[in-house]
Amino acid sequence: MPLFERVTIVGVGLIGGSLGMALRARGLAREVVGVARAPETIVTARDRGAIDRGTVDPAFGVGGAELVVLATPPALVVPMARRVLPHLGRDAILTDVASVKAEIVRSVEALAPPGAAAFVGGHPMAGTEGRGIGAAAATLFDRAVYLLTPTERTPRGAVERMSALVRALGAVPVEMEPGEHDQAVARVSHLPYLIAAALMGVAQPGTPAAGAAGPAFLGATRVAGSPVELWAEICRLNRDAILSALGVFREELARFEGALASGTRFDALLETARQARLRLADARPAPGPAAGHTS
Amino acid sequence: MPLFERVTIVGVGLIGGSLGMALRARGLAREVVGVARAPETIVTARDRGAIDRGTVDPAFGVGGAELVVLATPPALVVPMARRVLPHLGRDAILTDVASVKAEIVRSVEALAPPGAAAFVGGHPMAGTEGRGIGAAAATLFDRAVYLLTPTERTPRGAVERMSALVRALGAVPVEMEPGEHDQAVARVSHLPYLIAAALMGVAQPGTPAAGAAGPAFLGATRVAGSPVELWAEICRLNRDAILSALGVFREELARFEGALASGTRFDALLETARQARLRLADARPAPGPAAGHTS
Repeated sequence: MPLFERVTIVGVGLIGGSLGMALRARGLAREVVGVARAPETIVTARDRGAIDRGTVDPAFGVGGAELVVLATPPALVVPMARRVLPHLGRDAILTDVASVKAEIVRSVEALAPPGAAAFVGGHPMAGTEGRGIGAAAATLFDRAVYLLTPTERTPRGAVERMSALVRALGAVPVEMEPGEHDQAVARVSHLPYLIAAALMGVAQPGTPAAGAAGPAFLGATRVAGSPVELWAEICRLNRDAILSALGVFREELARFEGALASGTRFDALLETARQARLRLADARPAPGPAAGHTS
Repeated sequence: MPLFERVTIVGVGLIGGSLGMALRARGLAREVVGVARAPETIVTARDRGAIDRGTVDPAFGVGGAELVVLATPPALVVPMARRVLPHLGRDAILTDVASVKAEIVRSVEALAPPGAAAFVGGHPMAGTEGRGIGAAAATLFDRAVYLLTPTERTPRGAVERMSALVRALGAVPVEMEPGEHDQAVARVSHLPYLIAAALMGVAQPGTPAAGAAGPAFLGATRVAGSPVELWAEICRLNRDAILSALGVFREELARFEGALASGTRFDALLETARQARLRLADARPAPGPAAGHTS
């Protein structure tokens, strides 16, 4: 049974397109409308089964929607919310998928007068190295953590409908305060990206280190090969939390370095890290095969 | 056509067992003999097709071998070389698979009198999170970089036979001076391991960060879940090179941090890292699918 009559997805790229495919494949919406800047994206999204119909006009596209998902790049979420909010019914739910939340949630809530559509910040922890509708897949959210960031202003009913949707997508809803969200993803997503990029500097092209790079190094640096534009924007939007996460990481790394240099408690530190990693993997089964690493 | 009449592998675990499987599957040795401490390992190795026959006695096992591969943990390579060298013919080749080389190569060369079997240090950049013969696979070396570390004492003919073997295994031989090897693998293997372990400290169990951890974080920290014993030993054996690699990494990370904080040249740094990563991936096609990462 559909959870929503009409869902409109603004931005049918990797995340928006995958969401449309999953909604349609699982019968969770009676109709999925797509909004894209380029008409050819609409054609591709329809061909790939991500939407029932599409439009280049956001105001028209969100008309009559029970749920509107802003799946644009992070910097466009607030401008797009400003554009579509006047066209939403008061029972509608507005959500986004941006990987930074505090500033976006504060700004969108400031836009919406009392009685306007409810805004529930969202962030599915899913993605691939691909981008755009061509990389979209109905299975993208399978077993993924899907963060929701309601505030005291968010109607509880809207949060519960979003949680039900996330579960129906096969994902795991986790609620977090927006600022807490930004600190958390700075640590587990944005920091690992910067580490991977910095790690490339220790194996400059043409050096013996680059010649020796095997699957472990390719795995450790994989995310550094992603398109820079989106990541640079995310890092700027979440700069303070990332700088703070970098500080924590630097201290952690110094503990390992000190233990290795002095020969004191080194194995115990490694074992603590190993136990934490095993607990985390148990809690969140990672899709896909294990990568090689011991060399 | 076999490249060797008899190959003896001392230590039929993940690497030794995989090597035996690959030698036999590709018909590269007329006979593969395994040496293991536990008789049940010999039975399993034979059952899995890694060896033709096995023994618990190293001196007996290496008798008549044209090639002897020491695939023991790194700390046992030198003691085992001392034990088997007197039993090798002068035309035999002795090699190992340890991921640290300078100290091992120096010590084994000091053991071997002029006219003894030739020692060629080796290090296949291949592995999985598994361990032991149960995790071995004939395909482990497919397209892997296989580092060889000859010195001025190493007969050129022995190096060339090893290179031919590596190529016949489907891997890519790369020659490096032993000290250069240790610096290189400190950067592309041992440092990424320590980074992964330290990264676990930014998402302590029970915190929002741990709750938000998705496939990107699981991928970035995967190697931290490996058995500690082998890694701790490797880190101790290559401590100085690892501490030096940590210093280089810290400087690289500081450059990204400074650029993010000041807003200067941040995108350019990320783009340089991205280009280096793409060139590396082109040079070394990684087996397996790409992992998720953008969240």
